[in-house]
Amino acid sequence: MTYTTKPTVVRYVETDKMQFVHHSNYPKYFELARIEWLAKLGVSYASIEKEGILLPVVSIKTEFKKPLFFGDEFRITVSLKKPPKATLEFDYLVINQHKQIICEGNTILAFLSAKKNRPIRCPEFLLMLFT
Amino acid sequence: MTYTTKPTVVRYVETDKMQFVHHSNYPKYFELARIEWLAKLGVSYASIEKEGILLPVVSIKTEFKKPLFFGDEFRITVSLKKPPKATLEFDYLVINQHKQIICEGNTILAFLSAKKNRPIRCPEFLLMLFT
Amino acid sequence: MTYTTKPTVVRYVETDKMQFVHHSNYPKYFELARIEWLAKLGVSYASIEKEGILLPVVSIKTEFKKPLFFGDEFRITVSLKKPPKATLEFDYLVINQHKQIICEGNTILAFLSAKKNRPIRCPEFLLMLFT
Amino acid sequence: MTYTTKPTVVRYVETDKMQFVHHSNYPKYFELARIEWLAKLGVSYASIEKEGILLPVVSIKTEFKKPLFFGDEFRITVSLKKPPKATLEFDYLVINQHKQIICEGNTILAFLSAKKNRPIRCPEFLLMLFT
Repeated sequence: MTYTTKPTVVRYVETDKMQFVHHSNYPKYFELARIEWLAKLGVSYASIEKEGILLPVVSIKTEFKKPLFFGDEFRITVSLKKPPKATLEFDYLVINQHKQIICEGNTILAFLSAKKNRPIRCPEFLLMLFT
Repeated sequence: MTYTTKPTVVRYVETDKMQFVHHSNYPKYFELARIEWLAKLGVSYASIEKEGILLPVVSIKTEFKKPLFFGDEFRITVSLKKPPKATLEFDYLVINQHKQIICEGNTILAFLSAKKNRPIRCPEFLLMLFT
Repeated sequence: MTYTTKPTVVRYVETDKMQFVHHSNYPKYFELARIEWLAKLGVSYASIEKEGILLPVVSIKTEFKKPLFFGDEFRITVSLKKPPKATLEFDYLVINQHKQIICEGNTILAFLSAKKNRPIRCPEFLLMLFT
Repeated sequence: MTYTTKPTVVRYVETDKMQFVHHSNYPKYFELARIEWLAKLGVSYASIEKEGILLPVVSIKTEFKKPLFFGDEFRITVSLKKPPKATLEFDYLVINQHKQIICEGNTILAFLSAKKNRPIRCPEFLLMLFT
């Protein structure tokens, strides 16, 4: 399963004095991508949280190939790496407007009960969404 | 009443492609200053929130005189503008390591009951702190 | 002269533990709005900088009326307050998807020669754009 | 070779609505740690850039064990993973005030000539610093 986001424009504030996007912005971009995908699948991330389920990131990896510059428009292809169980694993590919690969990423998210502050298994509705 | 913070070093990520600190960082610096002041007065901001009191910013103003650069160390002088009532008003003066005035700011904070999500008057313990 | 932006979705990372958007994000939103407006008028902000002209913010004011929450979609109405001279002054009105006023803002930008690091008058092409 | 930073206090703005520090802040914390280490070794990162050498991050990995909360004070132990050649590789261990492991990280930085916008080998003075 895979999804490609709408184009997102690089914001001025996301650059640093090296002239390109600071690497701490990519976790935010990945987050946008998976939330947009969920929305496309009919699930609002806000509603998941209202049900008392949190999805904290427990692992993140990124390999940078090329920088993004101010004004660039990028898309992200998100893929579900394997069927969700105790965790939800995504791969990401960030591509700029010239079809150049900017970076590759991977995140693992856990399911957490907000009430009990304890890990839980993947909720049924998310399991059905991704299978 | 007035307080001057310890020196804070400008972080790389706080710069933008213009080579100096992006203006959206100053609200964060002001926040650091008032939280550090409270801590100095023996009150942790976290403990205020644990009592169900939130202090959202309802107004902020900043006049920029000179930029801050990566590696600069600045101090902030915070002053309580008037005795707290329904709101808490602070003035800020950001000074770099060369004693140059970087900017002047002002914020007004409200007191909000987290439970009722409604404005409340300044809690007694904060009133005593600032008078 | 006035312009209303496309809707922008509040990002998860823009919230804080108070549950709504941290006030330091509004300067970023205002920046998005004026850059989108310029783009609409046919001028890329990146190209202005390539000509050696920087537009640092020298003053910013914001009055917050209501919070923005994760997932909210807001639009910003930007207005040029007066014909540009030594500075460029904009008013902002942030409106959420329920047509509620979130905040009102104002920024003053200076024109700076990147080379000479000195204030300059409003360049001709920007003057023509805004008159 | 290894270095442990001074304590850094979690900033309010670094939390998100999940109540703890957003994961996009850890790349910023790692950056603080390596810049503080360099400073301790007598090298200002700003001065490296003035010599026309940039150190972009080309790879970053983080495994999160426990969250950081507002007001927490953490220290980071940075270690040089191997002698620098074409890249500079660091491991990070973030520890809170209760000596709990918050996360483990790794970054690889490249050496880039700002002028030629091309990778270069590790400059002599950095090589000597780290051997």
